[in-house]
Amino acid sequence: MKVSEVLHMNGGIGDSSYASNSLIQREVIFMTKAIAEEAVSDVYCSNVPQDFMHSRSWLFFWTKHTVGEFQIYLNDLPGNDFNSIFRSLPRVQEELKEEIGSEFGPCFFNGVPGSFYSRLCPTSTLHFVHSSYSLMWLSQVPKGVEMNKENIYLASTSPPSVINAYYEQFQKDFSMFLKCRSEELVSGGRMVLTILGRKSEDPTSKECCYIWDLLAMALKQMVSEGLIEEEKLNSFGIPQYTPSPLQLKAEVEKERSFSINRLEASEINWAACGNKLYSSDDSFKDDGYNVAKCMRSVAEPLLVRHFGESIMDKLFHKYGEILSDCMSKEETKFVNVTISMTKRE
Amino acid sequence: MKVSEVLHMNGGIGDSSYASNSLIQREVIFMTKAIAEEAVSDVYCSNVPQDFMHSRSWLFFWTKHTVGEFQIYLNDLPGNDFNSIFRSLPRVQEELKEEIGSEFGPCFFNGVPGSFYSRLCPTSTLHFVHSSYSLMWLSQVPKGVEMNKENIYLASTSPPSVINAYYEQFQKDFSMFLKCRSEELVSGGRMVLTILGRKSEDPTSKECCYIWDLLAMALKQMVSEGLIEEEKLNSFGIPQYTPSPLQLKAEVEKERSFSINRLEASEINWAACGNKLYSSDDSFKDDGYNVAKCMRSVAEPLLVRHFGESIMDKLFHKYGEILSDCMSKEETKFVNVTISMTKRE
Repeated sequence: MKVSEVLHMNGGIGDSSYASNSLIQREVIFMTKAIAEEAVSDVYCSNVPQDFMHSRSWLFFWTKHTVGEFQIYLNDLPGNDFNSIFRSLPRVQEELKEEIGSEFGPCFFNGVPGSFYSRLCPTSTLHFVHSSYSLMWLSQVPKGVEMNKENIYLASTSPPSVINAYYEQFQKDFSMFLKCRSEELVSGGRMVLTILGRKSEDPTSKECCYIWDLLAMALKQMVSEGLIEEEKLNSFGIPQYTPSPLQLKAEVEKERSFSINRLEASEINWAACGNKLYSSDDSFKDDGYNVAKCMRSVAEPLLVRHFGESIMDKLFHKYGEILSDCMSKEETKFVNVTISMTKRE
Repeated sequence: MKVSEVLHMNGGIGDSSYASNSLIQREVIFMTKAIAEEAVSDVYCSNVPQDFMHSRSWLFFWTKHTVGEFQIYLNDLPGNDFNSIFRSLPRVQEELKEEIGSEFGPCFFNGVPGSFYSRLCPTSTLHFVHSSYSLMWLSQVPKGVEMNKENIYLASTSPPSVINAYYEQFQKDFSMFLKCRSEELVSGGRMVLTILGRKSEDPTSKECCYIWDLLAMALKQMVSEGLIEEEKLNSFGIPQYTPSPLQLKAEVEKERSFSINRLEASEINWAACGNKLYSSDDSFKDDGYNVAKCMRSVAEPLLVRHFGESIMDKLFHKYGEILSDCMSKEETKFVNVTISMTKRE
């Protein structure tokens, strides 16, 4: 499966859309804003359109032109819903103008459809690259996922061959990303990436695998109810890898185009999916369903492609139940790894 | 009414979509390809990606970067369907690679949502601008269309005040287009525009007004059947102006940024809407309905906004009937005006 042909968020602005359920992604952009702003101020001393950090897009980059003009490129895979983003741009520009005030110079937005594991822009044209919650997605499902049995991501029961296959795919993809962006960035250009990851060096650590483990649990229940064939489940794998800060560092150093300025891990409660950073006692049930909706907006197209559309409502209802139950018993958090880099001379 | 918020082609790839019904627009791009190629060769001596002329987009422009890299910007109003265009790009790139062969260098496609009556790109960054079948659309319906009674565009019965209002709006819009593009183009950059127009100096000439006159006829029938209120029809106007070559020349000379290299008028049979340049005797009926479909893909959103969705099927069926009848009795052609210019030093 070519992930680039299947992986896309749920489009539009409906109940299951990414636009309506990307609360956690927005929260993380807000949390890591200071790091991105610092990097931007480093490239430009003044008149910095810092509030572009609010961007809904996964990956964006910009080029500074003469007389204070900025060109902003919003990248996503061609299957994603650019129409909704483009229709929201006039409002976004109005908001930016209000926030930034008189310093707001001409600012030109472009959409760039394509995989960020390939070249997207001409050589030495970008001054700043920002990506949030995107680089954990691999370009393809690692080979040999059948060996991973009923797991859909890495888990404590994953065999070493599967763990290696996931890591190798991540290394291959992430180094390709670094190579492409280093060709596109000017010398001294900055790049800030936030990736869903982990603090632990154990790639099967609960902090990064639990969320998928619980979805696998819902799928297994449906196998036992005869709604999904066991073989179908065994051949499914999520094309994702959640790296540790040290793993990121190792890849950046190996690729050699960038020097690292900052490398940090942060945490965000799963409950932030429901726009509540601190959940009250009685809201676990809602929280679970909110997390399920958030995951649905991201993973549904992949699941539909493999299991068919008809089981989706049931699957995500079950997933919501399981999530509610688990969130009422323990503290559940996503780990974000943020890295800020400068393109070497 | 702000046209930029309403004017968009029918999206998607369905039966009434612009993608499925833009045969005449593609044919005109093919007809005027030689003029655009000449302009492009003038800017670059070799390695010219001439086949970009096949672009489906109304307006596109590009920037040549170092080492033979091209960046291609596809512009349309934010309400148009960029998703369909972006999803077709991988296939377009494959086709270009096959046609152009080993000379095909890296080529980066971007979408630029926005009105071309405003700035879309940074200063002095474009080398070539091409627009086909777009600049006849005005930024707004000229004031005073109520005076135009049952006409929806200029017609022999239009009062002089309405004729002037349409011309003034065209002058205002077209000179703004020239100003914006001249700021974006590098010195010596080229621009080729093909506009639906007329040969005659009479703005109410049948060659440009008849197509809308027949739609007005269908609307009037529906008024007499009580399906549309007369007042509703009287307050509707198509935001379009079809200029003569001399009118275009006058605007370009007044704006002063460009020197004109070529200025030509060409004709295309209405029947080309059905992908048949020369219609056989027995195909007039089909031809009429094909033209109606073609016009529907372009004008439906404007009509829906004013008259509501419910009458559309009936309206375009009537329009098809009227078109068939008229195409069986006389030769019916669109006139295209093509102008090729160089940005002055």
